[in-house]
Amino acid sequence: MSSMDYAQQVAACVSAKRLEERLATLASFGDTGDGGVNRQVFSIEDRAARECLVNMAEELGLAVHTDPIGNQFFRLTPHGVSDTAPAWLMGSHLDSQPTGGRFDGVLGVVASLEVMTALREAGISLSHPIEAVSWSNEEGSRFAPGCMGSMVYTGRARMEDFQWAQDVEGKKLMDELFATLASTRRGRSRAFGTPARGYLELHIEQGPVLEREGLSVGVVDGIQGCRWLGVDIIGEARHAGTTPMDMRADAVREAAQAIVAMHACLEDPEGRLRVTVGRLDVRPGSTNTVAQSVYFTVDLRHPDEQVLADAEARLRRALSEAMCKCRLEIRQLSSHPPTVFDEALRRELQTASERLGLGCRSMMSGAFHDALYMASFCPTAMLFVPSRNGISHHPDEFTSLEDLTAGTRVLAAAMTRLACMKDG
Amino acid sequence: MSSMDYAQQVAACVSAKRLEERLATLASFGDTGDGGVNRQVFSIEDRAARECLVNMAEELGLAVHTDPIGNQFFRLTPHGVSDTAPAWLMGSHLDSQPTGGRFDGVLGVVASLEVMTALREAGISLSHPIEAVSWSNEEGSRFAPGCMGSMVYTGRARMEDFQWAQDVEGKKLMDELFATLASTRRGRSRAFGTPARGYLELHIEQGPVLEREGLSVGVVDGIQGCRWLGVDIIGEARHAGTTPMDMRADAVREAAQAIVAMHACLEDPEGRLRVTVGRLDVRPGSTNTVAQSVYFTVDLRHPDEQVLADAEARLRRALSEAMCKCRLEIRQLSSHPPTVFDEALRRELQTASERLGLGCRSMMSGAFHDALYMASFCPTAMLFVPSRNGISHHPDEFTSLEDLTAGTRVLAAAMTRLACMKDG
Repeated sequence: MSSMDYAQQVAACVSAKRLEERLATLASFGDTGDGGVNRQVFSIEDRAARECLVNMAEELGLAVHTDPIGNQFFRLTPHGVSDTAPAWLMGSHLDSQPTGGRFDGVLGVVASLEVMTALREAGISLSHPIEAVSWSNEEGSRFAPGCMGSMVYTGRARMEDFQWAQDVEGKKLMDELFATLASTRRGRSRAFGTPARGYLELHIEQGPVLEREGLSVGVVDGIQGCRWLGVDIIGEARHAGTTPMDMRADAVREAAQAIVAMHACLEDPEGRLRVTVGRLDVRPGSTNTVAQSVYFTVDLRHPDEQVLADAEARLRRALSEAMCKCRLEIRQLSSHPPTVFDEALRRELQTASERLGLGCRSMMSGAFHDALYMASFCPTAMLFVPSRNGISHHPDEFTSLEDLTAGTRVLAAAMTRLACMKDG
Repeated sequence: MSSMDYAQQVAACVSAKRLEERLATLASFGDTGDGGVNRQVFSIEDRAARECLVNMAEELGLAVHTDPIGNQFFRLTPHGVSDTAPAWLMGSHLDSQPTGGRFDGVLGVVASLEVMTALREAGISLSHPIEAVSWSNEEGSRFAPGCMGSMVYTGRARMEDFQWAQDVEGKKLMDELFATLASTRRGRSRAFGTPARGYLELHIEQGPVLEREGLSVGVVDGIQGCRWLGVDIIGEARHAGTTPMDMRADAVREAAQAIVAMHACLEDPEGRLRVTVGRLDVRPGSTNTVAQSVYFTVDLRHPDEQVLADAEARLRRALSEAMCKCRLEIRQLSSHPPTVFDEALRRELQTASERLGLGCRSMMSGAFHDALYMASFCPTAMLFVPSRNGISHHPDEFTSLEDLTAGTRVLAAAMTRLACMKDG
């Protein structure tokens, strides 16, 4: 049999029932009662979910490894292969936003365990180890920034960089991390930067594209670039009743002009440029006072770095030209260049989808994922399944069991192919 | 001597030095150390200021009266006139905004005491009683609504209407009122609705018009009408990175369009229509989330009720037409029709200004004042002095001593004329 045949065989062993059961089990940790999940990193709920994951992995006979920031690795080492041989990794994260759903992150972890289960069932003999990984603190909602676990693992940041982080209650990241490590079976210690052959991540799309096109899976080309700007518009606080219109420097009025002008100058016929003002604060914020100042954020995304740079320049000009009597200050809060995923791995996912007869397209990821950091560390690719109405970070987050299973089958087939390949 | 001569004589007795000293004394109650005053109604600072006012009045030999909501009246009854004969009233308020200045309100009270002092000095014998009045809770910043004292005195509201009012710390209006009454010498009891011959109020403009035109005083024609609207724009919360632009119902973007359209449709070549969005709240207010909803307020003012009604209709249409994918809800939060002040009293103020050789114009008041409610109760008029840069409710609030004195002289002259006139 060829590795293609093995791949089909393992994919066929993927069980929708097991997938559904494990997702339901994990959704019970932090269940908010309205279909949602609140399982922020290193919380009691996260600790219980981690322990549950260790139990699931041990039932499958996988070796448990944990690194110092709490990233969990569940390893299947083929007979005759070294315990320390580099593995193919697949996974995602268990932590959620405060008002999270049942699929964001956890799907990628549960699907990886299902791939392991299917491999066992199919009785395939692999050439390379495989590991399911669950990264710590992808969301960053309790302790910023997000993707902390994968960032530290891949050397993009050090644990010490976050040693002063606190949550809103004043609890320290390090205290909460150590309490989590102490309360979970950790198995063997894993060192940061331990080499991997490559990484695949299955995730919900968190956008509406696959659902709109009636497709079950999307192969992710990369993660679009993203720039965050902070914009201050400074006017003068005046009495709304006594100050003639022509003597005002009205920060709300000019902010509105600026936002309209910004959107007008960033119209993209290709529909790939994305611009969002999600936060806007007015001072002093009183009904009968002309606003002294407005602060708003701009989230700007595009798959091409040059387009992004041009858009930022255009945007700055448009904001500046929209000012009449107010003063403008713009600062860049962050800038992530676009990431392109490994072409060979994308082709593997594409081929696996086609051989399973699944509708598939290639697409960019609008959101960040742990795969963003893994991409600079080892060959990396991602696979999306549809999000109903494009909703995520919300109790209404939903993907049909059919699509969940389809995505897991593609992951299983691609992983099997990769782990069966002899070096050569 | 004619009443005109008496008026000139009393105006000449107005002392800039006394005015300055009394203003400085009152500014010490709630002094914020940066030139500002925090003397919210019924606070410890307000109680001390009230007691100080009683001392000043008693030094002048004025009879102290207090009504059940804490309005203070300081009465000069001429020889041979009944203790209960209706008086000419003048005054304003002592309470300030949390970040108030040294002139808003307190000027009208201190100027009234100065008129009393000047009358004593000039030794003029009057035909009618005069009273200086200090109204309770004009600002409404601690216990809404504002103008509470004059509203209850004139029968536009009852004390019971406010019995459940609390401040942000949960302190009850009634507890704070009774504690204030208990800690201040109250003199005789004054009944709500006790008739008055008329009312004059001197106040800072709180706008930039007089300063811009280099004038010392403005005779106020009336108070412009004012409508407050609450606008909800309801979209859909979506991920800023994953949601294509054409699939968004972005509440911030459409709110910006709406505010721009609203200003465009309310351009007034006469410069009399005033429209302000002073408060704007975004939900959920996260940088990488397309906004679910925006709430903003509209403050709309004009001296003519019909123009105001037309403007509101035009504004509603403009907001509605600016909606693309979001839903719009508008509700009227309040509506005050324009108030026109008494023509004879305005003429008195005008004549007094001219005879004192002061630059003067007639103008509308953009802000509310106690005179708004007094106007429906007895003949009422108002006088403005300039506000530097149009600033009020701020430590930078400032009027030159020259202008303060000019305004007080006009008040003194007009009051003298009115109180000297025999009925007939």
